[in-house]
Amino acid sequence: MTSGQNPTRESILGGPAVILVQPQLGENIGACARAMLNCGLTDLRIVKPRDGWPNPKANAAASGADLVIDNARIFETTAEAVADLESVFATTVRTRDMIQRFVTPRVAAGEMRERYAAGQKVGVMFGPERTGLVNDDLTLAQTLVTVPLNPAFSSLNLAQAVLLIGYEWFQAGDRTPDRFLHTGQTRPATMAERVNFFERLEALLDRTGFFTSEAKRPSMVRTLRNAFERMEMTEQEVRSLHGVVTALVEGDRRKGGS
Amino acid sequence: MTSGQNPTRESILGGPAVILVQPQLGENIGACARAMLNCGLTDLRIVKPRDGWPNPKANAAASGADLVIDNARIFETTAEAVADLESVFATTVRTRDMIQRFVTPRVAAGEMRERYAAGQKVGVMFGPERTGLVNDDLTLAQTLVTVPLNPAFSSLNLAQAVLLIGYEWFQAGDRTPDRFLHTGQTRPATMAERVNFFERLEALLDRTGFFTSEAKRPSMVRTLRNAFERMEMTEQEVRSLHGVVTALVEGDRRKGGS
Repeated sequence: MTSGQNPTRESILGGPAVILVQPQLGENIGACARAMLNCGLTDLRIVKPRDGWPNPKANAAASGADLVIDNARIFETTAEAVADLESVFATTVRTRDMIQRFVTPRVAAGEMRERYAAGQKVGVMFGPERTGLVNDDLTLAQTLVTVPLNPAFSSLNLAQAVLLIGYEWFQAGDRTPDRFLHTGQTRPATMAERVNFFERLEALLDRTGFFTSEAKRPSMVRTLRNAFERMEMTEQEVRSLHGVVTALVEGDRRKGGS
Repeated sequence: MTSGQNPTRESILGGPAVILVQPQLGENIGACARAMLNCGLTDLRIVKPRDGWPNPKANAAASGADLVIDNARIFETTAEAVADLESVFATTVRTRDMIQRFVTPRVAAGEMRERYAAGQKVGVMFGPERTGLVNDDLTLAQTLVTVPLNPAFSSLNLAQAVLLIGYEWFQAGDRTPDRFLHTGQTRPATMAERVNFFERLEALLDRTGFFTSEAKRPSMVRTLRNAFERMEMTEQEVRSLHGVVTALVEGDRRKGGS
């Protein structure tokens, strides 16, 4: 899973602010910045980073996401960090005794997209590595987000939590087709090209006695055609298969067959 | 985003095999094991780990996912690692010149769930940190998975790639409601409780001259009721608001108001 920076492609920037409340390790802040930029998020806000700021360990762990680190803003309190936002989400795994609205990351991403598209300033808060957000911070959020995970082992590190929220944000606005057949220089074969191949193959098989009886031939033909059709053959592959069939037939001839 | 191991909750185990092909760093293997267990995946297979096996750095980075590390199996070749599987997915960010089917992680997860539910043995392959999977490995997969991410900065570390695939696997089988209001010991207020509060408030406001004219009263009432209704009040909150109103009214009286 590599590839890295690609300066020839336009970066997708903006999106909701990410607010890290009292993060402890610079490495984690850097890894969060990297995960943010992976997902097109660039507005990093940090409340009271334990080890001060700037932090060279954050730059090192950002693996090239310097843009995010260099533009990070530092705040003394969570309230100041979210002051200009109209809509705040907060991540938590704890069930609290507070009355608040919980959603999954997927639903949160959809709601963030709606609000962001409507011109609202949106943010999502993450708590310190060990303790998570305290109730006073959660009260600054209108919606809490909990990631459904293995209930017996649900601990995520900070950057992984940021990645999952950012990933859902990105997917909610992404236009990548769900499925596609990568065909490179070629194209999907037309029905005519496929049927032409099938008919040639079947005619050759007729001569070999492959079809054990005329009664069984139709179902045997269907079985073969269905199997080949699942290949979703390209034009190039149909030509290759013609070549394969020719080679098999000629090989047989060389050995002195019919 | 904390919480960690919770031995009182039953772990969700099984799922597709995760095949790491020639991973370099033990730390990364450990982080992959942690991400796997987060998502209920436990079948880890490693092809030629660069630094040998067992690797204490993998155990340290697994942060408690020892179950996955201890049961990991080591193979000499990718072909051996996938030999018993019926369906293999492979992650890649590169566009290759091969003709293969690409899907998003979400679609891959749905397809893995379908196949797994049908009793098939399923796996997903991840390449070495720097280079990704080579074409000969990709040929062992029937479906390639690419994560849609910021095209200018799409590099994920190995554990993050494993986490995103595992996350989608988990979500595809998860029954968590998309949204819910956590109400703790209380319950949502009934319409009767809410309307009773509104009518009391409006009657009190009538006495204060809050409604500037009889003509404007209906729209002012609607504005207030709509705002309170967006709170999705619980029964406890309705009682609190009654108390607030009483306090405000009595405070006024103590100052000698009407």
